[in-house]
Formats: sequence, C-alpha cells, structure tokens
Amino acid sequence: MTPAADAKETKSEKDAKPETSGAPAVAPGYGQPHQYPGRLVIVEGIDGSGKSTQLQLLQRWLVSQGHTVFFTEWNSSKLVKETTKLGKRNRTLTPLTFSLIHATDFADRLFYNIIPPLKAGMIVLADRYVYTAFARDVARGCDPAWVRKLYGFAIRPDLAFYFKVPVDVSLGRILSGRASIKYYEAGMDLKLSADPVESFSKFQARILEEYDRVVQEFDLTVMDATADIDEQQEVVRDVASTMLASYQPRGRHGQAKVPGGGDSVPPARVVEPQR
Amino acid sequence: MTPAADAKETKSEKDAKPETSGAPAVAPGYGQPHQYPGRLVIVEGIDGSGKSTQLQLLQRWLVSQGHTVFFTEWNSSKLVKETTKLGKRNRTLTPLTFSLIHATDFADRLFYNIIPPLKAGMIVLADRYVYTAFARDVARGCDPAWVRKLYGFAIRPDLAFYFKVPVDVSLGRILSGRASIKYYEAGMDLKLSADPVESFSKFQARILEEYDRVVQEFDLTVMDATADIDEQQEVVRDVASTMLASYQPRGRHGQAKVPGGGDSVPPARVVEPQR
Repeated sequence: MTPAADAKETKSEKDAKPETSGAPAVAPGYGQPHQYPGRLVIVEGIDGSGKSTQLQLLQRWLVSQGHTVFFTEWNSSKLVKETTKLGKRNRTLTPLTFSLIHATDFADRLFYNIIPPLKAGMIVLADRYVYTAFARDVARGCDPAWVRKLYGFAIRPDLAFYFKVPVDVSLGRILSGRASIKYYEAGMDLKLSADPVESFSKFQARILEEYDRVVQEFDLTVMDATADIDEQQEVVRDVASTMLASYQPRGRHGQAKVPGGGDSVPPARVVEPQR
Repeated sequence: MTPAADAKETKSEKDAKPETSGAPAVAPGYGQPHQYPGRLVIVEGIDGSGKSTQLQLLQRWLVSQGHTVFFTEWNSSKLVKETTKLGKRNRTLTPLTFSLIHATDFADRLFYNIIPPLKAGMIVLADRYVYTAFARDVARGCDPAWVRKLYGFAIRPDLAFYFKVPVDVSLGRILSGRASIKYYEAGMDLKLSADPVESFSKFQARILEEYDRVVQEFDLTVMDATADIDEQQEVVRDVASTMLASYQPRGRHGQAKVPGGGDSVPPARVVEPQR
C-alpha cells in the first residue's frame, strides 16, 4: 500500500467570511476557512502512529526552505496543566471533564498560540487538533454531536494529515520506547480490561473506528503510517508543497510580527511556544 | 411589587426517560426531568441579589423540617481550582476559556456532588446552576446556542428561583460588604470601562438582560429580590413546599445512602460537600 496523497488546494482567502474582531470567533465557526495570511497544518493519529515524527521532519524541512514555523501540541497549555495533573493523579476525571479540560486547553492555545502566528503569516504546525477530541472523547462515550459543537469555535486547518496504523503496530512502537502505558492513555477509566495493554488495545481500536468516521466527515489526508518513514515524509512534503503554492510568506521579507509582541520575526527560524 | 410564586408541581417521575447507566448522561439530555428520588433546587441572580442568603435560609428551614440537604456552589470543585486561580491571576482567561473552565467545574460537581445525593434521595440545593453560564458567558460574548449545547449534559432542576434585582441595588449591597470588586467579577476583561464600579454596572446590566431571556426560555420562578428578606423567604418556602408535595424523603427513614459511601445518612442534617 502506497501512502495516499489526496491533497486539495487551500480555498481562496476570498471565500473566507470576514471576522468582526481580532479574537477567535466565540460563536461556532468551524468549517469556515480562516482568512489569516499564515497556514495551519495539523497531524492526527493514535499514539505510536508516527505522526509526531512526521510533523517534526516537516518542520525541519519547512525551516530549511526559509519558512517561519510555529509548533503547538495537544494538551500543552499551562492554564489547565494543574487540573489535568490533579484529575489524572486522583483518577477522578470523567469522560465529560476529560473532554472539557482538553477543550479548555485547546481554546487557550487557539487564542494565544495558533491565531497570533497565523495572523503574523507563519506556518503553524499542530500535533493533534480537534479531531483528536472527536475520536477520543467519543470513544470514551461522549456524544459525537456534542463534542463537535463543543469545538465549534475552532478554525479549519489548511492541511490535515491522518496517520493510519493498526493497533498492534502502534502498540509495538510504544512499548519499545518505554516500560508502561499510563492509566488514561490506556483508557483504564473505561474498565475495558484490568490489563493495561489489553485495555490500551481495545481503547485504541475504538479510537481508530472514530477516526475512520472523522476522516470521511472532514476529508483528512490519509497516510499509510506503516510505510517507511522517509517514504511517508516525501508524500507529506509533496502534499504540503501543493498546499503552500498559494502561500505568501510575509515572514521571509521580515514583515511578520507576532501581534502584541512588537518584534519583527526573523525569517527561517522555529518559533517556540512562549507560555 | 409582591414576589411572584408561579411554582409548578414537579413532573411525575414516570414521565422521566430512564437513563441507561448510573453516570450522568454524556449525551445532551437537558430538559428531561431527572428520575432520581431526590430533589434539586437552584437559585440564580446577579451578585448582590440576595440569592445565597435565601438559599441558606431555605436550607436551615428544610433541615428543621427533618430533611437531609446537600449544598453545592458554582465554581467550587477542587478539580479546576488551580486553573481558575492561575487564569484569573494572569488575567489570561478569554470568554471561551472562562466558559469552558466553569463547564468543567459543573461537570465535575454534577457527577460527584449533585447526582449521588439525588440518587440517595436528598434535597440538593445549588447556589447558581447552568443558567449562570447562559447569562454570564453570553454577556461575555459567547454564542447563546453554543453555551446551551455545552451544558447539554446537565439535568433539569425541580425548582429554579431567579432573584431579580436592579444593578444599583446589587451594587450597593456588594460595596457595603467589602472594599472592592474583583477584575473578572466586574467584567474588566471586556474593557467596558477602566473604572471597576462602572464596568461592573455595565457588565451586570448585560447579565440581567440575558437572565431575562433565560427566565422566559426555562420558566424560572421569578422573585422580587428588592423585597424584605423574610417576605421573600416566606414565598420561597411556599413554593418549595408545593414542589416537595410529591417528594418521599428516603433519608427520613434512615434508608438514604450516598452511593459509594457505604454509610447510611442520618436524617435531618446538612451534608457538606466532601471534595
């Protein structure tokens, strides 16, 4: 099986509905193409699908091409860190609170880490996006329509990769890297099995099913994540290049600014999250 | 103006849709009467409306009548405490993250502090409920439909009071009790005014407008919160008594148990939140 490259060109920015303010739409606006000069590329897949590796390789390549790249990761905002830690430690998170905490994290990062660099004309790379919630929260028992509405404030990425991999392959990759699987990662809260590895397999199988639905619904670019790393990366770069054809990197001319920051962003560097 | 007493009798439990599990519905189920043996009474109103005083007086009276009462308060779960503190201290909360953090708090309390005592046949008193979000988050700019869907997992209270009061009265009450108004309480994040008192007035006026919509939409029992405390309480007790006519307090016969707790709950006491 060869990795599929069903990339579509980004919709013209003229198609985008103008926003009334600089803030992310508080009203549901998902599905509308954004009107920012930057580009948003996201990767999805179960743990051990290799999506993060592919995104890092893409990042390095984009930087080598002279682009200004901003990287952001699922569940990484400082805002909810303590809450997540407490809930996971006490194992008191329910499917609902688990879902809502991640939505809070996402809303915080959207406002502070995704929209500002997009406004500044950068390429934003996101390791996991709303589709993770659509797959994982629903696998935990949340209502699919409820979760989609919950993230109604999100903006649509310009390119969304889904790294498809069977559970046994992902499990092998995870266990080769470390000794154990964490409680919530294994979906132990769902009481699918008392054995973490078995629970993980069952939980990830559910997530895979949901991802299949998500891929159809939101037209993600499906990658064969069992293929060779270099081979996959070649496809990723091809697809990204096609998407970037319409992109005018302001950062390359030294004009990109992080709103509120004041400093101009030098070209060809990776901007790390500041919070 | 006399406090209105437009109480309706609680719907028969036979009308309630049976839930498939003991967990709170993860799917949207708001608007369905709950099927628990307990009763849920909630109060709403802007700060300084006197709603908390009225709820405390009701609590004391219910206990004196031999009922087992469980009290819970908006934004009180330990789960999100650190997040709220951090966001408020740094003033980095956006209308969206503010809304989502409160929804997380509510989801946590619903699961651990509201549904278990209702299952155990207690009377649960809630100081603020989902209507606070419907009024306050919308006053902050969140989409009304989005916020309502967000709380789709909530259960419908058996009795919901709204303590209606003009802003100047509530402001007078608040300022007489303490020196200053807090940043988010005054809606300073909305940049309505640089003066906290003026900002508070404008923000609360917006909230009052939203409450008016909520009262219509969800048929809350409106109280004249400018009336005498005792006079109001008399009405509150009358309305509560009518609602409680169909209530069979299992706790009075020593049968009520907090699920998972194991101990039987003695009658006629106030059960304080345990988390």
